[in-house]
This record gives sequence, structure tokens and C-alpha cells, in this order.
Amino acid sequence: MTQHKNRQFLLVSRPEGMPSDANFQLIETDIPTALEGQVVVRTLYLSVDPYMRGRMSAAKSYVPPFPLNEVLVGGVVGEVVESKHDRFAAGDIVSGMLGWADYSLSDGAGLYKINPDLAPISTALGVLGMPGLTAYHGLLEIGNPQEGETVVVSGAAGAVGSAVGQIAKIRGCRVVGIAGGEEKCSYLQSELGFDAVIDYKTADVRQALKEACPNGVDVYFDNVGGDITDAVIARINHGARIAICGQISAYNLDKPDIGPRLFVHLLKNSALAKGFIVSDYAAKNREALVQLSQWVAQGRIQYRENIVEGLENTVDAFLGLFRGENLGKQLVKVAEPTRR
Amino acid sequence: MTQHKNRQFLLVSRPEGMPSDANFQLIETDIPTALEGQVVVRTLYLSVDPYMRGRMSAAKSYVPPFPLNEVLVGGVVGEVVESKHDRFAAGDIVSGMLGWADYSLSDGAGLYKINPDLAPISTALGVLGMPGLTAYHGLLEIGNPQEGETVVVSGAAGAVGSAVGQIAKIRGCRVVGIAGGEEKCSYLQSELGFDAVIDYKTADVRQALKEACPNGVDVYFDNVGGDITDAVIARINHGARIAICGQISAYNLDKPDIGPRLFVHLLKNSALAKGFIVSDYAAKNREALVQLSQWVAQGRIQYRENIVEGLENTVDAFLGLFRGENLGKQLVKVAEPTRR
Repeated sequence: MTQHKNRQFLLVSRPEGMPSDANFQLIETDIPTALEGQVVVRTLYLSVDPYMRGRMSAAKSYVPPFPLNEVLVGGVVGEVVESKHDRFAAGDIVSGMLGWADYSLSDGAGLYKINPDLAPISTALGVLGMPGLTAYHGLLEIGNPQEGETVVVSGAAGAVGSAVGQIAKIRGCRVVGIAGGEEKCSYLQSELGFDAVIDYKTADVRQALKEACPNGVDVYFDNVGGDITDAVIARINHGARIAICGQISAYNLDKPDIGPRLFVHLLKNSALAKGFIVSDYAAKNREALVQLSQWVAQGRIQYRENIVEGLENTVDAFLGLFRGENLGKQLVKVAEPTRR
Repeated sequence: MTQHKNRQFLLVSRPEGMPSDANFQLIETDIPTALEGQVVVRTLYLSVDPYMRGRMSAAKSYVPPFPLNEVLVGGVVGEVVESKHDRFAAGDIVSGMLGWADYSLSDGAGLYKINPDLAPISTALGVLGMPGLTAYHGLLEIGNPQEGETVVVSGAAGAVGSAVGQIAKIRGCRVVGIAGGEEKCSYLQSELGFDAVIDYKTADVRQALKEACPNGVDVYFDNVGGDITDAVIARINHGARIAICGQISAYNLDKPDIGPRLFVHLLKNSALAKGFIVSDYAAKNREALVQLSQWVAQGRIQYRENIVEGLENTVDAFLGLFRGENLGKQLVKVAEPTRR
């Protein structure tokens, strides 16, 4: 599939509440050409991630807002089609933060080569990429789970959550996942070996947690916030650790997010809660990738991908994240690599 | 002053909301006598502390509930009047967790001698006791303040808060205290050298924080929770540390404590919040007391005591904590030491 034009998604207005198609515009431009020190990358896979919602708002957050009327930028796996850069050659498969577009220009900053013989190239956006590293660092650095402890993870069927649960199992923990829908819950329990799973769409989460965590909660890996987190925090043990990875329930609210104050639970239990972003632990990415790759190769960490075809469907795939549609990593497949 | 009877305060019912006199009963019994391995301690000073409210409820907390119809137990400085215990002799000044009573019997567990020549004996219940250690450990172990950072402390004029602010000043921080009333605020700023003080009873706390913390908040030592904490958390910097020491605004509520969900602020700022109780850091008490004693001797840490006279006024003194009446450590003076 060869394009003669470059399609690009722009953010044209800032969403209030849930984003919609009207916030985005698909334009066509010419395919870029590389100047000295640059490469042109043809997008093969695009990653859509919940954190991108934050960047669509103007509010201060851990990453700067996306500028309006510019191309949206996210995780991409692509193929170098033109290089005037020392480190890259045409045909290289690379990953980096690039545009929601058929083609992107890069000066090589933050771009790295991936070896397509070691693992499917799409895993560079999932279990061997940002989501896998997020799970690894957040669980091990903040959660610090010990053998026999109970680890609860919300958003358990997503790219991050499913890795968290499996790493916690490797560490010898009792793992309880919270996810929405029977398909996800059955996958976590039957295929990934979670000890218990709670379907928040049908269960009384408080009661279900009581049954699933007879010894309380030692580690909570929080992807969602809101009522689910309130219910988990009510069951934490003395010395519990809470890794705050995401608060997806709050991202699209157009009014203040109100709930029970939770600090009193942290106080009563000498518990720790820490927010983080994967880049906080970048210095440990190399060792993390080595370990994750081994576990994936050994089949001790499994992963799923939910792949939508076609750049034009990127916004739909992104919005699906907030409807809880994805089991595993949500990707958009934009093109096939060139056959060699 | 020699008693012929032993007055003791019992907890006779569990408070709902703010405690009242009706929850307590003052009884008279005989003065105890020591069996082998026991000492009788005559109370000189009693400490009343906000955490004791938690123990008056039946709910699970970091310390077990007080049993009903038994003598209330808190921090005491007293004099050994009879000893059948190896480690103690009549005339020793001791401190420990003993009854709200004129006399207590002890088997010596948790009882330690204090040297009345080194510092006023009442400081064993304040700056050189539990509140001082709470300030020291919470600020240094969790807050970990660095030179030039901004440290905010709520409940700043209490025994813990005023020590926190002064230790943070010693560490070279900008210190902002939040307290109620002009007398307290003036004391913190003029006498203790806080850089800025916010009177929550008259100020718009959010606006005042904005002015007092032009570089944001790096460390927050939280004694109060509620609206004040909400306002501080909204201004934390990336990598902020929050030591949750108390949530006094919540202790006497008879309905759920509802407010803005705060985890999203921790997430956006990779910030840490940790609850604690002073005993979590007991292994470091010796080094902490050495350091605190030096600072007190050098005048680098000052302290105030708010002393009510008479055991019979203990409940009033305790209730005053929740009306924000005390500047510095709230004590009840029960008796004078025997002249020697």
C-alpha cells in the first residue's frame, strides 16, 4: 500500500468532557522529505493511549498540552523510508513519538530501532513498550509486592493492567483484577491466571472485594480512580502501597470529581500512595526491557492486542478506550512493512 | 498536694461526632499498691492529643479502640511513689502511657525514666516526646525537605506543627504555616520565623496559598485534612511529598467526609502521599531525641505549652483540641513533684 499523499490528524479544538470527532480533523498534505540529519518514517502501527486525553486539555499536567491545529503525536512503530541521519537507514523498523499520520519527519530524537526478529514489531507499543514498562516500574518500584501479598489492579484487562497482574503472579502474589465485562474477566482468570476477577459492570464491587481479598489489600495498582478506587482503598492493610498510574474515570468529566476523602485511610494504615509516569523511571528501562522480554519469551507474560485497521479509524479507536472496549493493547494498523 | 483517693476518668460511651462530657465519668477509687514487678506512678502531667479521639470510636484504626468503662490511657509524666520493680525507685520521674488518673499502676512496659535536670519534665510529652518525634520523623522521613523547597504545614501552631515548621527552617526551606487566629499566626511568624502564615479563619486559603507559595508546594505536612488540604494539594509541585499525620477535621464528623478526589493531583505531579504514626519510626527515636534535644538547647526549636490545671479539667482540655484552642502542646497539670 503506497500513499501519494500524507494524511494527518490535527487537534482542532479542546474537548470538554468526552472527546468527539469534532475535536479532530483529518487533512492531506505532501509526503515530507528529509533534510540533513532527518528521517522520514512511514507509520505501520499507531498507539492510542488514555493519557493522551490529558494532553488534549489546556490544563497543566505531567506532559504539556497538545498544541491546537497541529498533528497529534503518540507512540508509533514505523519504517524508515528515507534517511539523511547517521543512525538510521531506509528499511529500519523504528519506534518513537510521532504523528497520527501516514508519514512523519524526525530528527532522530527519541527514535530507536527495533529488531523485528525478536518479537512482533507491534509489541514495541505494548508489552515491550510504554505500557509494559509502566506496569513493570509502577508495580515494582511503588507497589513493591512481596510473596503472599494481595495485589489488586483496576483496568486489569488493558495493556498495562494485564501486565501488572502477570508480573504480580510471577512475584508470588494473590492477584485480583477489576475489569468490565465477561469476556475480559474470563480472559484474566482463565488465560492469565488471576486468582480472582471482579466485573465492575455487574458486581457489587465492595462486596466482591471483600470476598476476593480475605486478607485485605497490600498493593493497589490504580488505572481508573473514582468509585472503584474508593472501594479498594476501604480495604487496604497496614503498610499498603498504592501506585497511581491512571484515573481514567476522571479524564472526561466536565464537573469536579467528588468522592469520599481517602487520606484518612492512608493515615489509619500508614499507607503510601504515589502517582507516577513511566518516564520517572527511564533510567531503569533497559533492565526492565530485558526482564520483560524474557518473561514474554518464556510465556510467563502473555499479551493481547486489539487492532483497528486504517489511519482514518484512529479517533474511533481512541474514543473506544473510554468506553472500555479494548482487551489488551489498543493499536491502529496503518500500513504493512515493505517486503524485503 | 496529697490525695487520699485516686480519681480516674473512664470512657463510658463512644462519642458520635464531637465528644461531650457525657462520654466520660470521673470516679474515685483507692490508690493502688505495687505487687512484685510493679510501680505506682503519681501523675504530674497528662497529655491530651487529637489521635485519642480515634481510639474512642469502635472503628478499626492504627491503634485499638479504648475499652468502655475502663480508665482512659494517654501520655503521662509522673513520679514513682512506690516501686517493686528493678528498674525504678521511688522519686524517679518517668514517662509512659498511663491512665487519666491521679495514680497508675505499671509493670514498667513502655515506661522510661526522664532526667529532670536536662529539660523541663513536661517536654517529655511535647517537643521531646511523642509530638516532637512525630514532627521529626514525618517531616524528614516522608517529606524529605531539601534546601530552598517550600514546606507547608497545617495545624501549624500545635505541638507537632510548630516543631515541623522549625525543623523545616533549620533545613533551609521556605515555611508556610496554616493556623487559626491572629495570636497563633503572629506567634508562628514573629517568634518562630515562619516565612508566611495563613489564618484559615479569616483568609481565602486558596488565594493566600497562591501568594505564600509562589514556587508551589514541595512538601505538605498535613495535620488537618478537609478543605485546607484540598487547597494545598491543588498547588503541589512535580515530585511533591505529603506526610499525612492527622486529619483532625474528620475525626468528629458524623457523616461521610466528601470532597474533591485528590489522586489525580498525585498522578499529574508524580507526587507521594504517606500516612504514618510515630511508632512506625521507633527504631530512629534515639537519634531523633538527641537531635531534637540539641536544637531545643540551642534555641533553634522553641516550644509553647498550654497548661490546664487539675485532673478534673482533662476532658475540657481534650475537647479544646477540636475547637483549635491550644497554642503549642496541650497539657493538664495534675500535681507537683515531691520536693527533694
